[in-house]
Amino acid sequence: MSQLPLEAPRRVLQLVVAYDGAGFHGFAPQPAVRTVAGVLAEVLARPLGAPVDLVCAGRTDAGVHAWGQVVSCAVAADTDVERVRRAVNGVLAPEVVVRSATLLDGAFDARRSASWRAYRYTICNREVPDPFLARTAWWVAEPLDLALLRLGADPFLGEHDFASFCRRGPEGSTSMRRVFESRWRDLGDGILRYEVRATAFCHQMVRSIVGTLVDVGAGRVRPGEVLAMLRTRDRSVAGRVAPPHGLCLWEVGYPG
Amino acid sequence: MSQLPLEAPRRVLQLVVAYDGAGFHGFAPQPAVRTVAGVLAEVLARPLGAPVDLVCAGRTDAGVHAWGQVVSCAVAADTDVERVRRAVNGVLAPEVVVRSATLLDGAFDARRSASWRAYRYTICNREVPDPFLARTAWWVAEPLDLALLRLGADPFLGEHDFASFCRRGPEGSTSMRRVFESRWRDLGDGILRYEVRATAFCHQMVRSIVGTLVDVGAGRVRPGEVLAMLRTRDRSVAGRVAPPHGLCLWEVGYPG
Repeated sequence: MSQLPLEAPRRVLQLVVAYDGAGFHGFAPQPAVRTVAGVLAEVLARPLGAPVDLVCAGRTDAGVHAWGQVVSCAVAADTDVERVRRAVNGVLAPEVVVRSATLLDGAFDARRSASWRAYRYTICNREVPDPFLARTAWWVAEPLDLALLRLGADPFLGEHDFASFCRRGPEGSTSMRRVFESRWRDLGDGILRYEVRATAFCHQMVRSIVGTLVDVGAGRVRPGEVLAMLRTRDRSVAGRVAPPHGLCLWEVGYPG
Repeated sequence: MSQLPLEAPRRVLQLVVAYDGAGFHGFAPQPAVRTVAGVLAEVLARPLGAPVDLVCAGRTDAGVHAWGQVVSCAVAADTDVERVRRAVNGVLAPEVVVRSATLLDGAFDARRSASWRAYRYTICNREVPDPFLARTAWWVAEPLDLALLRLGADPFLGEHDFASFCRRGPEGSTSMRRVFESRWRDLGDGILRYEVRATAFCHQMVRSIVGTLVDVGAGRVRPGEVLAMLRTRDRSVAGRVAPPHGLCLWEVGYPG
């Protein structure tokens, strides 16, 4: 931002971005590794004429995908958003794709302005894996009981301290989150999808929930134990963390 | 086959195999390159206790996928098919997966016994590509008219000499084929799928048909010209060949 002349009128560029997370060490920029923010910022600098500081709505981990990640950065008021969109897609598609580019007023911030985030986690619950779902769904061979999965998903609804279902955040950070939706869809042919929407998510929260719910669906954990796990606020009580490639940041909601 | 003792009773092992074709130079074995038959034969030799000669129902080209490829080979009568299936999947899944393994009588041959083959070709017809369809669908940005696509697909039905729509076969081979189904499905969100079923297919026949139909759908070729193209029996009149990654050998039919 400091690279723009002080007197230039400023707007905010909002990008809705989809990406296959397999080739990235997550979204957030890191030295010496390939990240989504890293490649996006590099490509954006050309049409924008200056380096950019990218803000995102949800910092996806290594291997996690996005369909509706929202990214923002300060730009000059006369930015040609269509040219920006084409420039990025011309270099990064189909691995990273800008689905839409919009110029908003200076108050918009992809992270701070967001009201909610929605994630989807896909499981391929078949005896034999599927070559075409291997990159985007977790293959679980043991039969999962959909009724048990649904009973296990209900206790996450509402406001809770998710300390049992996330990696510890920075000192003093809260793990209180409000969950608006927590449900399983049966897409047929053994494809099960967990859909969860919340104000925000702690680190590895969706993957911790799914890992525990698979234990519930397989009959190893009773659905009634899930609420007790939440209440202990102790990471050690929850189950394994589901692998990243089944997870996708689906959509981000903003007021209005 | 010659490696089995002469007196051993013989059966035929039938495998239904799915694979992501991206990492292979097609199905058929070739020296010094990675092929589906090459990796399958290598892995099968262990549980079968002898090298195998694999026959397949449809020789897919480099980059072409399969959901229902059928493969056969001669085996000893006491072969444990479940053990064979698990052994192959343990090594090759999820890239190559044996969906089912069955022991049949000695008359079965995956290629000669087949009555029909069904292929599917998927197109992502959107302005912006999709990271999650990039490996299995051809991204076509220009808008395609579904009604035109369907009008263009009709003339392929029935028995024709497909010389205009295939690469020249060996001297003396015929390019006469009978097509039972030739239709487009609209799967929503810009996903269009061409489904074609025939006695058998010439080399690059489906991809040649789809390449020409995309010209029809885009308005560059009139649907009425398709039948004339068929009748000339001249490869130079048909359009471009669609890329391999949108194509999938879907199913193979056998009598009874």
